[in-house]
Amino acid sequence: MITFGELLLRLSTERHLRLSQANSFLATFGGSEFNVAVSLANFGINCEFVTKIPTNELGERSLEEIRRKNVNTNYVIKGGKRLGVYFLETGASSRASNVLYDREDSSFANITLEDIEWNEVFNDADWFHWSGITPAISNNTALICLKALKEAKKRNITISCDLNYRSKMWKYGKEPQEVMPALLKYTDIVLGDIDTACLMIGQPKLNPDYNNLSKLPALYEEMLSKFPNIQTMATTLRYSVNASHQKIGGIIYNRKEIFKATLREVIPVVDRVGSGDAFMAGLIFGLLRDEKNYQYSIDFAAASCCLKHSISGDYNLVNIKEVEGLIKGSGAALVAR
Amino acid sequence: MITFGELLLRLSTERHLRLSQANSFLATFGGSEFNVAVSLANFGINCEFVTKIPTNELGERSLEEIRRKNVNTNYVIKGGKRLGVYFLETGASSRASNVLYDREDSSFANITLEDIEWNEVFNDADWFHWSGITPAISNNTALICLKALKEAKKRNITISCDLNYRSKMWKYGKEPQEVMPALLKYTDIVLGDIDTACLMIGQPKLNPDYNNLSKLPALYEEMLSKFPNIQTMATTLRYSVNASHQKIGGIIYNRKEIFKATLREVIPVVDRVGSGDAFMAGLIFGLLRDEKNYQYSIDFAAASCCLKHSISGDYNLVNIKEVEGLIKGSGAALVAR
Amino acid sequence: MITFGELLLRLSTERHLRLSQANSFLATFGGSEFNVAVSLANFGINCEFVTKIPTNELGERSLEEIRRKNVNTNYVIKGGKRLGVYFLETGASSRASNVLYDREDSSFANITLEDIEWNEVFNDADWFHWSGITPAISNNTALICLKALKEAKKRNITISCDLNYRSKMWKYGKEPQEVMPALLKYTDIVLGDIDTACLMIGQPKLNPDYNNLSKLPALYEEMLSKFPNIQTMATTLRYSVNASHQKIGGIIYNRKEIFKATLREVIPVVDRVGSGDAFMAGLIFGLLRDEKNYQYSIDFAAASCCLKHSISGDYNLVNIKEVEGLIKGSGAALVAR
Amino acid sequence: MITFGELLLRLSTERHLRLSQANSFLATFGGSEFNVAVSLANFGINCEFVTKIPTNELGERSLEEIRRKNVNTNYVIKGGKRLGVYFLETGASSRASNVLYDREDSSFANITLEDIEWNEVFNDADWFHWSGITPAISNNTALICLKALKEAKKRNITISCDLNYRSKMWKYGKEPQEVMPALLKYTDIVLGDIDTACLMIGQPKLNPDYNNLSKLPALYEEMLSKFPNIQTMATTLRYSVNASHQKIGGIIYNRKEIFKATLREVIPVVDRVGSGDAFMAGLIFGLLRDEKNYQYSIDFAAASCCLKHSISGDYNLVNIKEVEGLIKGSGAALVAR
Amino acid sequence: MITFGELLLRLSTERHLRLSQANSFLATFGGSEFNVAVSLANFGINCEFVTKIPTNELGERSLEEIRRKNVNTNYVIKGGKRLGVYFLETGASSRASNVLYDREDSSFANITLEDIEWNEVFNDADWFHWSGITPAISNNTALICLKALKEAKKRNITISCDLNYRSKMWKYGKEPQEVMPALLKYTDIVLGDIDTACLMIGQPKLNPDYNNLSKLPALYEEMLSKFPNIQTMATTLRYSVNASHQKIGGIIYNRKEIFKATLREVIPVVDRVGSGDAFMAGLIFGLLRDEKNYQYSIDFAAASCCLKHSISGDYNLVNIKEVEGLIKGSGAALVAR
Amino acid sequence: MITFGELLLRLSTERHLRLSQANSFLATFGGSEFNVAVSLANFGINCEFVTKIPTNELGERSLEEIRRKNVNTNYVIKGGKRLGVYFLETGASSRASNVLYDREDSSFANITLEDIEWNEVFNDADWFHWSGITPAISNNTALICLKALKEAKKRNITISCDLNYRSKMWKYGKEPQEVMPALLKYTDIVLGDIDTACLMIGQPKLNPDYNNLSKLPALYEEMLSKFPNIQTMATTLRYSVNASHQKIGGIIYNRKEIFKATLREVIPVVDRVGSGDAFMAGLIFGLLRDEKNYQYSIDFAAASCCLKHSISGDYNLVNIKEVEGLIKGSGAALVAR
Repeated sequence: MITFGELLLRLSTERHLRLSQANSFLATFGGSEFNVAVSLANFGINCEFVTKIPTNELGERSLEEIRRKNVNTNYVIKGGKRLGVYFLETGASSRASNVLYDREDSSFANITLEDIEWNEVFNDADWFHWSGITPAISNNTALICLKALKEAKKRNITISCDLNYRSKMWKYGKEPQEVMPALLKYTDIVLGDIDTACLMIGQPKLNPDYNNLSKLPALYEEMLSKFPNIQTMATTLRYSVNASHQKIGGIIYNRKEIFKATLREVIPVVDRVGSGDAFMAGLIFGLLRDEKNYQYSIDFAAASCCLKHSISGDYNLVNIKEVEGLIKGSGAALVAR
Repeated sequence: MITFGELLLRLSTERHLRLSQANSFLATFGGSEFNVAVSLANFGINCEFVTKIPTNELGERSLEEIRRKNVNTNYVIKGGKRLGVYFLETGASSRASNVLYDREDSSFANITLEDIEWNEVFNDADWFHWSGITPAISNNTALICLKALKEAKKRNITISCDLNYRSKMWKYGKEPQEVMPALLKYTDIVLGDIDTACLMIGQPKLNPDYNNLSKLPALYEEMLSKFPNIQTMATTLRYSVNASHQKIGGIIYNRKEIFKATLREVIPVVDRVGSGDAFMAGLIFGLLRDEKNYQYSIDFAAASCCLKHSISGDYNLVNIKEVEGLIKGSGAALVAR
Repeated sequence: MITFGELLLRLSTERHLRLSQANSFLATFGGSEFNVAVSLANFGINCEFVTKIPTNELGERSLEEIRRKNVNTNYVIKGGKRLGVYFLETGASSRASNVLYDREDSSFANITLEDIEWNEVFNDADWFHWSGITPAISNNTALICLKALKEAKKRNITISCDLNYRSKMWKYGKEPQEVMPALLKYTDIVLGDIDTACLMIGQPKLNPDYNNLSKLPALYEEMLSKFPNIQTMATTLRYSVNASHQKIGGIIYNRKEIFKATLREVIPVVDRVGSGDAFMAGLIFGLLRDEKNYQYSIDFAAASCCLKHSISGDYNLVNIKEVEGLIKGSGAALVAR
Repeated sequence: MITFGELLLRLSTERHLRLSQANSFLATFGGSEFNVAVSLANFGINCEFVTKIPTNELGERSLEEIRRKNVNTNYVIKGGKRLGVYFLETGASSRASNVLYDREDSSFANITLEDIEWNEVFNDADWFHWSGITPAISNNTALICLKALKEAKKRNITISCDLNYRSKMWKYGKEPQEVMPALLKYTDIVLGDIDTACLMIGQPKLNPDYNNLSKLPALYEEMLSKFPNIQTMATTLRYSVNASHQKIGGIIYNRKEIFKATLREVIPVVDRVGSGDAFMAGLIFGLLRDEKNYQYSIDFAAASCCLKHSISGDYNLVNIKEVEGLIKGSGAALVAR
Repeated sequence: MITFGELLLRLSTERHLRLSQANSFLATFGGSEFNVAVSLANFGINCEFVTKIPTNELGERSLEEIRRKNVNTNYVIKGGKRLGVYFLETGASSRASNVLYDREDSSFANITLEDIEWNEVFNDADWFHWSGITPAISNNTALICLKALKEAKKRNITISCDLNYRSKMWKYGKEPQEVMPALLKYTDIVLGDIDTACLMIGQPKLNPDYNNLSKLPALYEEMLSKFPNIQTMATTLRYSVNASHQKIGGIIYNRKEIFKATLREVIPVVDRVGSGDAFMAGLIFGLLRDEKNYQYSIDFAAASCCLKHSISGDYNLVNIKEVEGLIKGSGAALVAR
Repeated sequence: MITFGELLLRLSTERHLRLSQANSFLATFGGSEFNVAVSLANFGINCEFVTKIPTNELGERSLEEIRRKNVNTNYVIKGGKRLGVYFLETGASSRASNVLYDREDSSFANITLEDIEWNEVFNDADWFHWSGITPAISNNTALICLKALKEAKKRNITISCDLNYRSKMWKYGKEPQEVMPALLKYTDIVLGDIDTACLMIGQPKLNPDYNNLSKLPALYEEMLSKFPNIQTMATTLRYSVNASHQKIGGIIYNRKEIFKATLREVIPVVDRVGSGDAFMAGLIFGLLRDEKNYQYSIDFAAASCCLKHSISGDYNLVNIKEVEGLIKGSGAALVAR
């Protein structure tokens, strides 16, 4: 499993404090594609994380983190100016969480085509995962993403993508719809909701009703019409009462049928950052375990996502037994003792 | 904007610990009238806070706090014995929050009539805000409050009051009903529920049904019968499931009509201390922006109050955009990124 | 009041962190029977805690803890190898709390029959409380438990037991049903649900419907058929939405009638460890205050249990006034100030 | 052993922070006479602490602290307004530590003659310890101190006093020299340096040279001329390089001979508050163990004091073995493992 | 007093942890010229800090900080990309402290000539302070520095400069000796050692012996030969035993005479970052109080610097009384109580 | 590089607190042989750590730690009962640090001969490092140690040993002198002082004077007379003023000549646990780099050891450049910026 993306230093406040109140920051790490790798490593999948980090103390620290979480570092490039940072204040009740990016000019943002030898990276690889964040960072990262996808496709590697639209990014002069369609062309499995996909490929919104299952295939098909290569599309269903109270489910469409996971209440939300990545990793794991068992995949994805909301930090620190335990409905209420 | 009151050192436990469990206290500051000033400063209003603090290190520290929160310190008097303190344990679920006051003999409690030159304070002032806490502290503070109100009235300054009944105060030998009526006579805008007002002015309780809007004007009128000067009365609607789960709304009555804000669920409550002050500040801001738009005022007040419950500490650290965002219903569930 | 059991060092993570994330542990103490003693001491009952602790620094620290919580230490034996430890990660939402025991070979586990002079311990005693955890630790502790029960019975001391089934214990080669029946024979008051009791005494499950009050006496009688000495059996009713959201009630059966406490919502759960002990202590307190008022006892037990969920650590740090306040429904929503 | 004095809540900053920098305070407890009692309890002496605390949560918390440290609470009176507080910033290098008292009007300061039944307190007592802080608090505490001394003298109880001059106290209208002589008249053992004693009894300073041992007896005699009852006077020798680097020794004079302890370097100073109390407790312990072995007493006192500087908080948390280890010079440099 | 420079978010580890060990960072603020302003404000001098900060949450937070420390914000420009950050690990013993800059492309680094209206800034100003860090940041900041100096000179404003050589900066393509001479031409008072000055103005090193006072005037003159405008040059004397143990003194030369401050031991060093700024502020304060009393100035500067080493964070949080207390040698060893 | 030993969870108090004061513990990891591996990995050496850990959450956590510190985990065996724990209170000034072991019955203590396939472990290995702690744990670990040494010898692998005498261990019924000689017979390089070696091999003490270099060869030879295989013996020189102030040097003897490193002051000691391991790793690194350059080896060892005292936790987190910087005497006093 190859994932490619940026690893950021995450500086978050404690106890729902606002950034203006912080006298200290919790220092952890995260990044959508790395979060997916960590989750998959916890499920026993052998993962490589391809990225670029600076040669300073924070770069070294991030490397320790990758190793610690059991993700391989064979294709971590060193060099460039700085490690990207994001500041996070975790919201509560009616106040949303807030991310302040400080990631411009990071080592990863300035990565060059020469930095990565995809030939080596993809040697023996069976899956390549990317997300819509990478082409949102810089023109460079978008170009490298395209190259990686072409190289992966050549080798018949399965390709998955989490659309991951971020309104505070895409600031380098291109809009998603100018960049994403060319990338999605090579992709086999996509995670995202229909309207985010429409936005990213420059189509008008379709306003899907995810409760009306029978009408969904047509909508997915309309949206995917120019993407014959996409064989599977999944959507996280998230209904939000407020920042601390959400309902999480999921849908998967294999261009024939719709499969739906149980909707679960999440209250309170300990940390929702990374919950989409938890969904993505659950989905990949499910498809890896049994590529035809779409019901298992979407169940595993939704339960993973649900559990992630209870865990502080970007990563979903759960194992297969815990995810399957939730699917079977065994009791979170009991203290395991 | 002039606010007058006491600034206290707040020593609170973390993680819902009881006072008996505390090995450390978080040290912040607060006081009803100062909280209102901070909130208004965050909304862009130029505020002075009139108070008295000791000349020791804690007095200096509190002065730093006032400046930090962008409230002016031109009328902060220095002297006296000590800074008042309150200890707070934040409840959860079925256990209520608990305040332990240690504020007797504070510099503010022993403030004298000579300490404040209201002539200077009110020069150029357009609004004076006080609360029922100040006359509850000591005979001195009650007398100075009365003087301030007379001086403000003379200059046609708008006067607002939050009734703020505190059962653990009023210990200097006078009951609220002996003191408050004379003070409320000068007041234009009052925040409080009908029965608290009755208690404070020595009238029998009226047991209002705040859901029965059509009957409310008569009840407000009965309660306000001896206070022709009061032009506007607002009431925070608070329905409590438990200490962590509340529903917040609000009502405003302009002696003609009733306007009501949407009731919103608050769960979990991060810190409800200061949420009444957040309501008061929202109300003042709304009336300052458009004194005839009662609906906007009550909406802004209730949404401010609602947001405050998500913020640790006494102050409501939100801006106009965030309050209006909540009024419009935009999503606390989304991470802003 | 005599309670007998093990005192453990509790090392718990903060902020719902998983054990794998912990860079520090909060160090507190707890153990089912000690928790009961602390709770009773808070209700004004004079308690002795009989246990064995090592002579090292952690033993001394645990002794400080017993004294601090106002429990007598006259029968705390010193010696043996080590203090038992348990690691706790507090779950949230759909993730269960998790206990990792590290208590093998503790001073208490290796306690010997000679260590305790029951003749002295029971001199003047009126009540003896034990729980199903003690005989689950080791053959030694089971044997001493039996001895204590016989000695207590001889002196007509009231005996209570919390069944406290722990699936991660009972590892010394005996099953509960081989040990517990002989112990329960001497017991007057038992806390536990019907099916846990069945499991522990080796009877088939009865699948009781606790909402069907009229059928319960027959089920309790069936389960208690071989235990004529048990005069009272109580059951904590716990309905779990998830790890953070529970509903707590209780039932008591005096071999004639059923009495039921109000079911209360608990959300959020701050810490549910020790909530059963809080129930047990409330039950004992109620029966001590008025042994015929079963309604008061079960109300007091259920309200105690409910409040415990709001308190961090093993102990229920509430007083009689607070428990009775909750029974009367006075408002957790108000800040006491 | 009876000690009599005030117990204060100590709120100290971490990491040498100034009070103006503090966002939290470490909450511990201390008070000169209580510190002596804790130290003696650690040496195995049975101690009662006579004091007055309020009936609120902080009073309860302080009571837990007394029990925890193994000091008896039979004569802890409950009532009055508040628990005294002191704020502490621990200095470093060339910056002195700084104490901000907030102890006026405490329960102890307003204690009355009727509050304590000395007849009961002194029943079976063999030693009474007081310090110069108690009569510095208020006229009440000075009067009660006098009464206690008279009652103790009547019963031939050994009386010790630490002069403990505090320049920020003595604010109730009397100077030490108006109060202390009458109290010292009843005292058998005094700790203090010669010039502090002169100041407190209203004599001119004598500028002793503590290195010139042969001249010291005459100086002690001159100072003690009006106090024939004082049989032993000890002096802590403290040479300060800066706030983090001190040299600690001690002298004892039995009105015949001088005995001197080794001078030891203390670097760094972790917390010097309470180091005088550690000296006092060491002195009492030495005299209790062998009242004629002045050398042992002064060695034990100085080594105790020295060790205290390495311990955070007011109390000297060391045992006899550790103090004697230091006297014998065994190695602080080794890790005990 | 006008100071001009960059304000950085400082993220430092606790307890001497290395950056690779940090799980959290203490968040404070600092920057050489701001540190000088804070120190002067603590000495009662009215200061403006001219800088540029971003319009995001961290910019707002830094603005709160400036106000809090009693420095005026009238000329704080808002805009640009980001707030500069520096990471700090505080060394100990034989391990040096280490700074990791992450300040490229900050709002201040990209400040433009149009951003500041020096005409307004210098209206009524009597002193302008800058440091060698500002022209080390970017070509822009160097140009603006030059403009400010010319404008200040025009108005006969006293100009001071701390040479502040930073080897990790000066990365925009120019060497100090290409930039600094033109700036120093306008400067009246310079802080720096002779060889740093030589390096910055492109002269060969002079290897001064600061103990040989009689030879120093000639060396200072040689170095200052092309800078007739510089009337006063001061040098911090710092002898380092290791990262925790230093000796601090100072020298001032008024182009006639040398004045020297007492050398003081500093052990342990709590935080030496900002100690040069503390020296600078002490120097300015001394010269402001009595511009002819060079001995007072250098004494005040060296004692300020010495005290700073005991204080955590960039700022020197001491008042005049504390600095003068150290000059007089009053005792850091005593606890002020 | 193969190292073999136990990895312990280290629970240490903060701020020099005693164990009895701790309300939380910092959780890190350490163990003599692992500490050596981490240090070598920081110097760029490829290391395997052979150990046994339990399959629970703490075992997983320790595995994350090994990976994080860049040590290979190919021969980490999983199974057994528990992870060994040690509690640490860090002393200061005249109070020694104190270790409380809770490591009995750990997975490693109960490791069996069958658990490790030395044939695989030693395939390609060039160096094997063990310490005197491993045979002190249990009979099992002593036997496995012997087997490992025999296997290593067979393959001509260089073998190093740190004698590491621990008085609180060796509790399984054998004395060091019954076990160690057989193990040392296979060892090439030994770290330890002469008298510790004598004690461990059952020889009378020799009371060496390490300042008298000319007499040392004879003493080393006397001690090593029965160990012809030992080619190199090194000794850490540690002179302790107190727990916070030490002097560190070192000596190496190649059975021909003595080489000595500079003695360096260490003040303050941040954490001395692991400083011997830092010495050992420095020694190995020096010998690996240039096996004939004994002066470089002992310099590198002593400087590594010296730096370790400034670092919190068991590991020496420094790189080659930092060690060589200290050897060259470049300034710890400067802030690297």
